[in-house]
Amino acid sequence: MQGTQQTPAESAPYTPTDRTVPTRAAHKASYDRDLVHAILDEGYVCHLGFVRDGAPVVLPTLYGRVGERLYVHGSTGSRPLHMTGEAGPGLPVCLTVTHVDGLVLARSAFHHSINYRSVVVHGTAHQVTDPKEKRLALDALVDHVVPGRSADSRPANKKELAATAVIRLDLNEVSAKLRTGGVNDEPEDLALPHWAGVVPLRKGYDTPLAEAGLAPGTGLPDYLTAL
Amino acid sequence: MQGTQQTPAESAPYTPTDRTVPTRAAHKASYDRDLVHAILDEGYVCHLGFVRDGAPVVLPTLYGRVGERLYVHGSTGSRPLHMTGEAGPGLPVCLTVTHVDGLVLARSAFHHSINYRSVVVHGTAHQVTDPKEKRLALDALVDHVVPGRSADSRPANKKELAATAVIRLDLNEVSAKLRTGGVNDEPEDLALPHWAGVVPLRKGYDTPLAEAGLAPGTGLPDYLTAL
Repeated sequence: MQGTQQTPAESAPYTPTDRTVPTRAAHKASYDRDLVHAILDEGYVCHLGFVRDGAPVVLPTLYGRVGERLYVHGSTGSRPLHMTGEAGPGLPVCLTVTHVDGLVLARSAFHHSINYRSVVVHGTAHQVTDPKEKRLALDALVDHVVPGRSADSRPANKKELAATAVIRLDLNEVSAKLRTGGVNDEPEDLALPHWAGVVPLRKGYDTPLAEAGLAPGTGLPDYLTAL
Repeated sequence: MQGTQQTPAESAPYTPTDRTVPTRAAHKASYDRDLVHAILDEGYVCHLGFVRDGAPVVLPTLYGRVGERLYVHGSTGSRPLHMTGEAGPGLPVCLTVTHVDGLVLARSAFHHSINYRSVVVHGTAHQVTDPKEKRLALDALVDHVVPGRSADSRPANKKELAATAVIRLDLNEVSAKLRTGGVNDEPEDLALPHWAGVVPLRKGYDTPLAEAGLAPGTGLPDYLTAL
């Protein structure tokens, strides 16, 4: 099923490449488009890697997704955004999003692990110059934090738009990797007197803390109550 | 206080370098050693960046800390570990750990943000070949998942040690970056009818799920009850 289509349809899996097929634990890899989207949409921060002066740099940053495009924004003065330039060949990047779901405690030290879901995107980031796409990207970045939020905030004005650089990374060379389930101990270790199992990590939201001085009548919006 | 010592004592801050002084939002950066350690110790997964064939690669991976050394492990066949080699110049890496603490919803789209704490480590990773250090590193990796756990598990045997590669990254070129607190809206936006505030992210643990077939009398250990 994988790798058979040159131009995959919206629901087809991503085509594996040399970079997205792991050298080991290949069974943990997936190219499923819906799975990739779900992992990306659940995250708040990606880790964006690029090369500067021959050395790797990995920075945490917000992101947003519109279909098969990821957007990252920042000040026009920030390093990775500046490096993409306004035109030209773009900046080779690797963008990774990871969720830790549980701690896997095996009877043997060797088989300790975590349950996780991650997505790694390889590609070339380009600066977004089209004003319409830039607005769309900024809305996506805000809606990524809280779905529906961009419609309930003051849109960026000209000055803010000018101060914000947005880069785009297309979802072409993409893979997900995940570990789920229980402990994989060696058969000869099963009788050892060590507790073994999974500690799930709990995730959620605490009560929203309203700023002082909200406009009169500004209650907690439904999209926050629903979190 | 910063940058005045060539060989900082254990409690002195890390010395800033060109790579660890941000080009913008410099007030969010910190070189405080205790803060850096605390952020590192709270994380489960780091994002390890390196350069392969001229392009950046960012992979999520477990890590452990012993004093001013970070350890990452993996199969001897895995790409980054293989690239460090057994000797030689080592592998330039960037290791980043990030915690997302809250969603910052401003009245303006532009001032949306997140509260976070991150640490970025630049340096050269070297493969650990000394068996004693390797054991220490593997204990640290297990204890990083759950403090105290390495003493309550079967240590790695010779075969497992041989199959595991460990790389070390010293904490020299290090910075933390954080955003805390509330919303920074423009004065002219304060009367807008949009809810503004911070949604804190809740973190914790769900009830541990014991494996079937634990040895009789193997109850939940205190270090898990204490989580």
